[in-house]
Amino acid sequence: MYPKNAWYVACTPDEIDGKPLGRMVCGESMVFYRAGEGQVAALEDFCPHRGAALSLGRVCEGKLVCGYHGLVMGCDGRTESMPGQRVGAFPAIRAYPVVERHGFIWVWPGQTEQADPALIPQLEWADSPDWTYGGGLYHVACDYRLMIDNLMDLTHETYVHASSIGQKEIDEAPVSTRSVGDEVITSRSMNGVIAPPFWADNLRANGLPADQPVDRWQICHFSPPSHVMIEVGVALAGRGGYEAAPEHKAASIVVDFITPETETSIWYFWGMARNFRVGDSALTEQIRQGQGKVFAEDTAVLEAQQRNLTLYRNRKLLKLNIDAGGVQARRIIDRLLAQEQPSGPAQALAA
Amino acid sequence: MYPKNAWYVACTPDEIDGKPLGRMVCGESMVFYRAGEGQVAALEDFCPHRGAALSLGRVCEGKLVCGYHGLVMGCDGRTESMPGQRVGAFPAIRAYPVVERHGFIWVWPGQTEQADPALIPQLEWADSPDWTYGGGLYHVACDYRLMIDNLMDLTHETYVHASSIGQKEIDEAPVSTRSVGDEVITSRSMNGVIAPPFWADNLRANGLPADQPVDRWQICHFSPPSHVMIEVGVALAGRGGYEAAPEHKAASIVVDFITPETETSIWYFWGMARNFRVGDSALTEQIRQGQGKVFAEDTAVLEAQQRNLTLYRNRKLLKLNIDAGGVQARRIIDRLLAQEQPSGPAQALAA
Amino acid sequence: MYPKNAWYVACTPDEIDGKPLGRMVCGESMVFYRAGEGQVAALEDFCPHRGAALSLGRVCEGKLVCGYHGLVMGCDGRTESMPGQRVGAFPAIRAYPVVERHGFIWVWPGQTEQADPALIPQLEWADSPDWTYGGGLYHVACDYRLMIDNLMDLTHETYVHASSIGQKEIDEAPVSTRSVGDEVITSRSMNGVIAPPFWADNLRANGLPADQPVDRWQICHFSPPSHVMIEVGVALAGRGGYEAAPEHKAASIVVDFITPETETSIWYFWGMARNFRVGDSALTEQIRQGQGKVFAEDTAVLEAQQRNLTLYRNRKLLKLNIDAGGVQARRIIDRLLAQEQPSGPAQALAA
Repeated sequence: MYPKNAWYVACTPDEIDGKPLGRMVCGESMVFYRAGEGQVAALEDFCPHRGAALSLGRVCEGKLVCGYHGLVMGCDGRTESMPGQRVGAFPAIRAYPVVERHGFIWVWPGQTEQADPALIPQLEWADSPDWTYGGGLYHVACDYRLMIDNLMDLTHETYVHASSIGQKEIDEAPVSTRSVGDEVITSRSMNGVIAPPFWADNLRANGLPADQPVDRWQICHFSPPSHVMIEVGVALAGRGGYEAAPEHKAASIVVDFITPETETSIWYFWGMARNFRVGDSALTEQIRQGQGKVFAEDTAVLEAQQRNLTLYRNRKLLKLNIDAGGVQARRIIDRLLAQEQPSGPAQALAA
Repeated sequence: MYPKNAWYVACTPDEIDGKPLGRMVCGESMVFYRAGEGQVAALEDFCPHRGAALSLGRVCEGKLVCGYHGLVMGCDGRTESMPGQRVGAFPAIRAYPVVERHGFIWVWPGQTEQADPALIPQLEWADSPDWTYGGGLYHVACDYRLMIDNLMDLTHETYVHASSIGQKEIDEAPVSTRSVGDEVITSRSMNGVIAPPFWADNLRANGLPADQPVDRWQICHFSPPSHVMIEVGVALAGRGGYEAAPEHKAASIVVDFITPETETSIWYFWGMARNFRVGDSALTEQIRQGQGKVFAEDTAVLEAQQRNLTLYRNRKLLKLNIDAGGVQARRIIDRLLAQEQPSGPAQALAA
Repeated sequence: MYPKNAWYVACTPDEIDGKPLGRMVCGESMVFYRAGEGQVAALEDFCPHRGAALSLGRVCEGKLVCGYHGLVMGCDGRTESMPGQRVGAFPAIRAYPVVERHGFIWVWPGQTEQADPALIPQLEWADSPDWTYGGGLYHVACDYRLMIDNLMDLTHETYVHASSIGQKEIDEAPVSTRSVGDEVITSRSMNGVIAPPFWADNLRANGLPADQPVDRWQICHFSPPSHVMIEVGVALAGRGGYEAAPEHKAASIVVDFITPETETSIWYFWGMARNFRVGDSALTEQIRQGQGKVFAEDTAVLEAQQRNLTLYRNRKLLKLNIDAGGVQARRIIDRLLAQEQPSGPAQALAA
């Protein structure tokens, strides 16, 4: 169960560079490609002629040409032509609203008429020259909500990421959770602690000493359907923590776009945006590789958790106060799901 | 759904050379081996004693001996003996009608009393010293009818095989389809064209210039249950095309035996028969390797098509005039399927 | 269907050396680890908090700590603590009775109150300095009863293990089967035969000639739920066979603990105990490797048999006198299964 009337990250521009990309999003098999003038298009990955996968075809002069018999598809899902054949009466396949923005391709798997590009999240870091970004994509065999839970409660860093970003003080620090409209925010501060290896590296990268006490913060922002941006950083102790001046801290934003593939698998777009040494691409790559290793640790834990939940389907999970972020996020998701029911939320809740 | 009262190619002689072969045909698990005097036998691959796979056993003096406890099986499916055991009352397992002919092992998965070897197709190229043959076997995860469609409409060569046998003129040339009894014939001619790479190679192999206009033809012959022979060739332009004298052309027969394994997988026996330079085994191998690469391109397309059809189970496919060959072939198959219903075609159609 | 009120071998001590082990036994996902003072503990592999796999965690001071959020689990299945969280009201997860004995870890998947360690089989060879043992573990995709059948009828050695322990005389020798309480014993003697390769090696290893006639014996002991100990050996012919004095024979015990993982897969703990040259660890390793190869031959046969039984679900298997051991073993298993029905054997048999 995932909201369909929502913008999801479908892919990155490099994935449709020169050839179409087939990818399942929210249970629907889609093909993404660059149509005329570089505009991105998204269609059902199903040729109306014989059901071939359009993603095995190629793009000619901005048109997607089926790789089986040469059917030429318009980016509105209408068949334009086919050599020697009359295809005017072919039923259209589905075209999905799709937008390229902030360095990602966004798709709306739900009702087209509701797809308002203004609903795509504002991402200041993505479009400002003061920031740079590096990231990657993982396919993970778990319900997308397990990943939201994971990211909205960073207590797990102490255990899952003990050798990189975890430290004992995380789960000793109380966590505070609040909602602002459809956004859920979980935050935690650890003052006067020693920076764990990942942050020590970042302090050094930022020209700061790595062996002195720091104030560390984590502020997780969930917004529906399944985006989690996490402000993370350390400042030399007593300089104001999160509010410290740039020269006293190393800070960044952990970026997580979680796109359901099926009920029990996701495309997980992860990355990190930072606003220091933004021109240093070697540093970007170094951070990216480090983050990739850390996030692969989550993958193993979440896939085992999913197998357990599949095996013990009726077992209730427990909710602690550290889980409040995930719990509130799921409440918002449940409301969106209810709104998508044919007859509105009332019937859905009754059922 | 596949006709069971039909001869299918089960394997090639080299596959049962010295040891039994286990292979599923039309949903039935079978074992093939050489019984006494080199005769081929086909049985259920299921030892009546404890259900072991007989194909893991060995052949001793023309008898199949179960590899688990030494049960000796006759090629009629009756247990002959077992060391120290009384097995006279063992129920027989199924023996399938099987014939070695034309360089292939043919099996009849349906009712034994209807299995007339005279129904095995005549293959002039297979038994004449004027011809030679090379081929291979692919396992493909698709309904056998998708492969028939593929072979009965060569329009796809332009797209799927663009770098070898495809050329733009194929899908510009009209296709003509007709039925003669239970045979369906689709033909297409392209006159005054440049030979694509595969045919240029064959022209040269045949001592002809490869850079001059040629007349090219494709004549696809379907016969039930799922055999497709395709006469293909090029002649120097204006020499009569298909009817040209041998010294002006390079021609061959594409051989396709499509044997259902399950509802959504096949054993695909592909090859090419030619009547020039028949003693040149290096050329045979060169053609075989080239054809193997070309036909692997179909495999990827058909498996993606099958995944789409499985995902969108209720979606209707469309039929164009290029599809007439496949459509008429399916009509014949449907009639055969109806005839196999317990109470004949009338009931089957009513249901 | 497997008895749950029984002791099964779950793992060997080296498998829980330093870290927890996740393993499914009788359809239940379990975690095994060393708790305080080296005692073994077995729990459901399911963290009561969010369903994480406890086996991905670690053991700290004898406590299993969940690798996701640091929940500390007691070896009775009760949550002991969690940093910063109140977990006193957490429902307990299941703790399984578990005992380390005879060099194995034994688990009781059924009702705790019936788990009497005195029911663990006596294994003289496991605890006596006069014996030594070497063995291994295979995962095999078959019903555990197929492996019992296999081991209770060694006729198959002639066919499955023709190059190592098989010999024609095995299936020429009559087999005798008897039950003593819940134990089933199948025995066979072959007198005045030539030792097959495996036994020739063992004769030489024991300082005896390998080229003279021997009397060979196989005595298979089944005890529920699924343990099979096989006394095997050869003595120089005419010295009393099984009863011969130690200096005239090479003898050992084939050890088989068959633990169901699911209905159609097992953890197969196999090995060999011997009472000659017990200090020769190179010989132990040599025997272990030889046995491992022999038993891998069974694996292939049993997995193919299981696939056949799954495909032909309703087909009856036949029972010969060589199958008497397996048949009687299954009769005991069926009685135990009936006893485990909620309302006792009467209802179970009626159903």
